[in-house]
Amino acid sequence: MRRVKKILNDPAKVVEETLEGMNLAGDGATRLLPGNIIVADREKTDKPALLIGGGSGHEPMFAGYVGPGLADGAVCGQVFAAPSPDAIVAATKAVDCGKGVLYVYGNYSGDNMNFDIGAELADEDENIATRTVRVRDDVAAAPVERMDDRRGIAGDFFVIKVAGAASEAVDTLEELHRIAAKAEANTRSIGIAVSAGSIPETGEPTFELGEDEIEIGMGAHGEPGAKRQKLAPADEIVDQMMDLLLADLPFKKGDEVALLINNLGSSTPMELFVANRRVRARLADAGITVHRTEVGPFITSQEMAGYSITLMRLDDELKGYLDAPASSLAYSN
Amino acid sequence: MRRVKKILNDPAKVVEETLEGMNLAGDGATRLLPGNIIVADREKTDKPALLIGGGSGHEPMFAGYVGPGLADGAVCGQVFAAPSPDAIVAATKAVDCGKGVLYVYGNYSGDNMNFDIGAELADEDENIATRTVRVRDDVAAAPVERMDDRRGIAGDFFVIKVAGAASEAVDTLEELHRIAAKAEANTRSIGIAVSAGSIPETGEPTFELGEDEIEIGMGAHGEPGAKRQKLAPADEIVDQMMDLLLADLPFKKGDEVALLINNLGSSTPMELFVANRRVRARLADAGITVHRTEVGPFITSQEMAGYSITLMRLDDELKGYLDAPASSLAYSN
Repeated sequence: MRRVKKILNDPAKVVEETLEGMNLAGDGATRLLPGNIIVADREKTDKPALLIGGGSGHEPMFAGYVGPGLADGAVCGQVFAAPSPDAIVAATKAVDCGKGVLYVYGNYSGDNMNFDIGAELADEDENIATRTVRVRDDVAAAPVERMDDRRGIAGDFFVIKVAGAASEAVDTLEELHRIAAKAEANTRSIGIAVSAGSIPETGEPTFELGEDEIEIGMGAHGEPGAKRQKLAPADEIVDQMMDLLLADLPFKKGDEVALLINNLGSSTPMELFVANRRVRARLADAGITVHRTEVGPFITSQEMAGYSITLMRLDDELKGYLDAPASSLAYSN
Repeated sequence: MRRVKKILNDPAKVVEETLEGMNLAGDGATRLLPGNIIVADREKTDKPALLIGGGSGHEPMFAGYVGPGLADGAVCGQVFAAPSPDAIVAATKAVDCGKGVLYVYGNYSGDNMNFDIGAELADEDENIATRTVRVRDDVAAAPVERMDDRRGIAGDFFVIKVAGAASEAVDTLEELHRIAAKAEANTRSIGIAVSAGSIPETGEPTFELGEDEIEIGMGAHGEPGAKRQKLAPADEIVDQMMDLLLADLPFKKGDEVALLINNLGSSTPMELFVANRRVRARLADAGITVHRTEVGPFITSQEMAGYSITLMRLDDELKGYLDAPASSLAYSN
């Protein structure tokens, strides 16, 4: 199998070196702690804290979203692997400032297990209260009746953005949890893959698609999608994606949404903007207005070519937190 | 030759559709004018204006950098082709608010010719004064004695950022030109390519590299670089790039710089952050401090894999404009 060329040092150290580089790129805004943890470098304030995390290889997610108005810290596993419970506890201690810690992460069994163990240890050994919101935005992963079988993909970003802003504004962990859970419940995504990414340690693509094939509903690690099919014009593909997306929540006439078109890796920005035309036309046809659009690489899957479309239905509360100031390596507002 | 899979509609309309999608993604912050022109949608103010532009296919450059604290407008050509003189004149009229227009663009013969004709027509037919700063940051394109043979690559971004902030602050076109020219004179870049991008109309890669080859000094359209060589560990490659970069201005002990690591398309963010570690180590060794770091896709070359490193030497004036607030589709501060 073709080995993908990448400019790396020792692939076994790629996560540590990546986080070192991310921390340096913050120019003093963050600190790197043992256990692949990045935290915002600011005086603790009297607020419930937000901890995010998950497997590496999706940069700038998660460590790129640490800063004022976003997460207080990120705990990062090896490539496509959950962080350890010990690291989660250490990160929980590092970000807590006496009002407890909200965990926001994508719904994957490894992350679920390790964050749950971390939460238990934080409670028992450190007396830190935690709450959890698992993002389950990928409509292709399971039917709506089985939300807990859905993966977290680019919708992570909107939930983190809202939760980060809310964590600066509210007094209690319960209130922060309520708001983040509302953001999560109103967020839906659908992805498409054109070609696979590869893991640095093996250099091999995680799946193979034919020269004229694409896959709708592909997960962020190459998990099988809803449908493999022939390449088609952009407008047709976006129509298919929007049909699945709009019907799912469902999004309805009069709704106001935030829109994210996420580059999974090596799609050209042109492709994302061409898609945006059609997304906007479909939303206009459905009587849905867009409050805010984000386009770019928010959560990647190495050099996978493809993109996802995310919608979050807004109310005044979510809109306020979405628009609130934020500053981090990968997103400022 | 392998045809690259992309999700597009009619490739002949890709620029128009891209700009339509970019304008929509601004959620009302910009307006799209005939001639592939995007302008900031705000009341004209009494200031010298900034117009940027060049060939398309490098998104988010140029149209992604239109907004408060950045450019007043961008005029975009077809893929890898300069905008027409007529479009440049139309864009000049659209952004002028009575104090003249500064053009900032990369130093390519097609752009130089068409912007010069545009400037002449703007002067003669519209009585609008213009000045020009051509960005010539690619140290691999020609020796320092022949600056005018150097291409503009990712350094465009820093010059646009500084000029955009300055255009909000200064009273005259002359003063704006002085500041942008200073930014340009202090900016140097070097790129590396791992694999080629392809043009939407042909679908064919613009050059070929062997399975274990890379090219140092590659231009943003696939122009030949300084040296083709075997793939090596990241730190070795970054060392080569930094040797060329530091010696060129030259950057010296005690200098303070802004640093940009630009993704040319499909390199993984991991590779850029791994590179950043070594860049920072080399700068620290040289006694050079980093005031601000940017990492991401600022000017791409379709799905080219590779990245460039840009340094801009700062003084208090440049630092102030670099840090000033900015808001646009692709960069906010």
